[in-house]
Amino acid sequence: MAQKQFSGKTIGRLGFYRRIVDDALAKGEQYLHSHELAVRAGVTAAQVRRDLMVTGFSGSPTRGYELKSFHNTLAHFLDAKSPQHVAIVGVGNLGRALLSYFSGGRSKLVISAAFDTDPEKAGRLFHGCRCYQIDEIPEVLKKEQIRTAIMTVPVEAAPATASRLAAAGIKSILNFAPVPLRVPEGVHVENLDVTMFLEKAAFFARAR
Amino acid sequence: MAQKQFSGKTIGRLGFYRRIVDDALAKGEQYLHSHELAVRAGVTAAQVRRDLMVTGFSGSPTRGYELKSFHNTLAHFLDAKSPQHVAIVGVGNLGRALLSYFSGGRSKLVISAAFDTDPEKAGRLFHGCRCYQIDEIPEVLKKEQIRTAIMTVPVEAAPATASRLAAAGIKSILNFAPVPLRVPEGVHVENLDVTMFLEKAAFFARAR
Repeated sequence: MAQKQFSGKTIGRLGFYRRIVDDALAKGEQYLHSHELAVRAGVTAAQVRRDLMVTGFSGSPTRGYELKSFHNTLAHFLDAKSPQHVAIVGVGNLGRALLSYFSGGRSKLVISAAFDTDPEKAGRLFHGCRCYQIDEIPEVLKKEQIRTAIMTVPVEAAPATASRLAAAGIKSILNFAPVPLRVPEGVHVENLDVTMFLEKAAFFARAR
Repeated sequence: MAQKQFSGKTIGRLGFYRRIVDDALAKGEQYLHSHELAVRAGVTAAQVRRDLMVTGFSGSPTRGYELKSFHNTLAHFLDAKSPQHVAIVGVGNLGRALLSYFSGGRSKLVISAAFDTDPEKAGRLFHGCRCYQIDEIPEVLKKEQIRTAIMTVPVEAAPATASRLAAAGIKSILNFAPVPLRVPEGVHVENLDVTMFLEKAAFFARAR
């Protein structure tokens, strides 16, 4: 599959539809119309139908989307066939929280290597994941066949870390540092700036 | 200001433009054209100009946006005049990581109350923030004038927690649980599902 043809926004929404479908299934629902899904996702029904075209999935005009096949279609489309290995760089509070969260095995994604500049951390296990020194990045990524990395490093360290990861063969970075990264063409960056989300939530709390 | 008139997407992008402007200022840049900002933000120049219309800010046709005034305009538009208090519900690994992160005082947002169902945690301080019992929510939110809450509770607890927060006067929720919330009209929900972001990053790492 050539992922380049898909926009980040479409993939983001498909992931969100999956959460809504899972939630509906957990509540015992069997079908959802595109307009019902649209309301829950905060988008238009036309948007839902357009997004689903990339997966080839369609619903019945009378009953809507059958949720179990919908779930399977999304999983088939979004997930790797086998568990996909991920690295994390920066084992501070946030890094450790993410290691703990993903150690539960609730997804097909496995954080299988951690890296930190602190020599005290190298060689230790954090929630079952081994921490290595930063200069071991190329070797470990190659050995573990890792192409995705999470960056939970301080903002000052983010640009250099991103370059290092790209040079070591990382193809996609989930960046928690509040700074836009410049990476070589062909490397995807997904920015997740928690402060930005909180600022947005706080904005909508005012004058309501 | 009537925040209802603004779309969540516009506010989200303005927050991202602010990060880009801060980054450019830190690198010593003084001006940015809308098309340069657009490239860094991954949107079109027309989108940038449309988003900025809500702030009343405009650039010079020859030199572009003057970055210091741009920064000030965005801060004036997006931030509260005085520090805004926020509560956090769920003091597990992720909750503690966020408490640590925001205890640095790097934003105008202050997490001033934490809540957890674990009676062992009540009365304790986490990164300087006091933890209360769940049934103290109404009283504490009122006393601290808190209208924004972060939810870092397990997925099973999320729907009931959201209802409890809305009943206690919360107007905006930043939800980390991977489940869509149904809240009363007038309450804003911002979903931040970390797994979804990682799935999206992993998707783009494949076949590249």
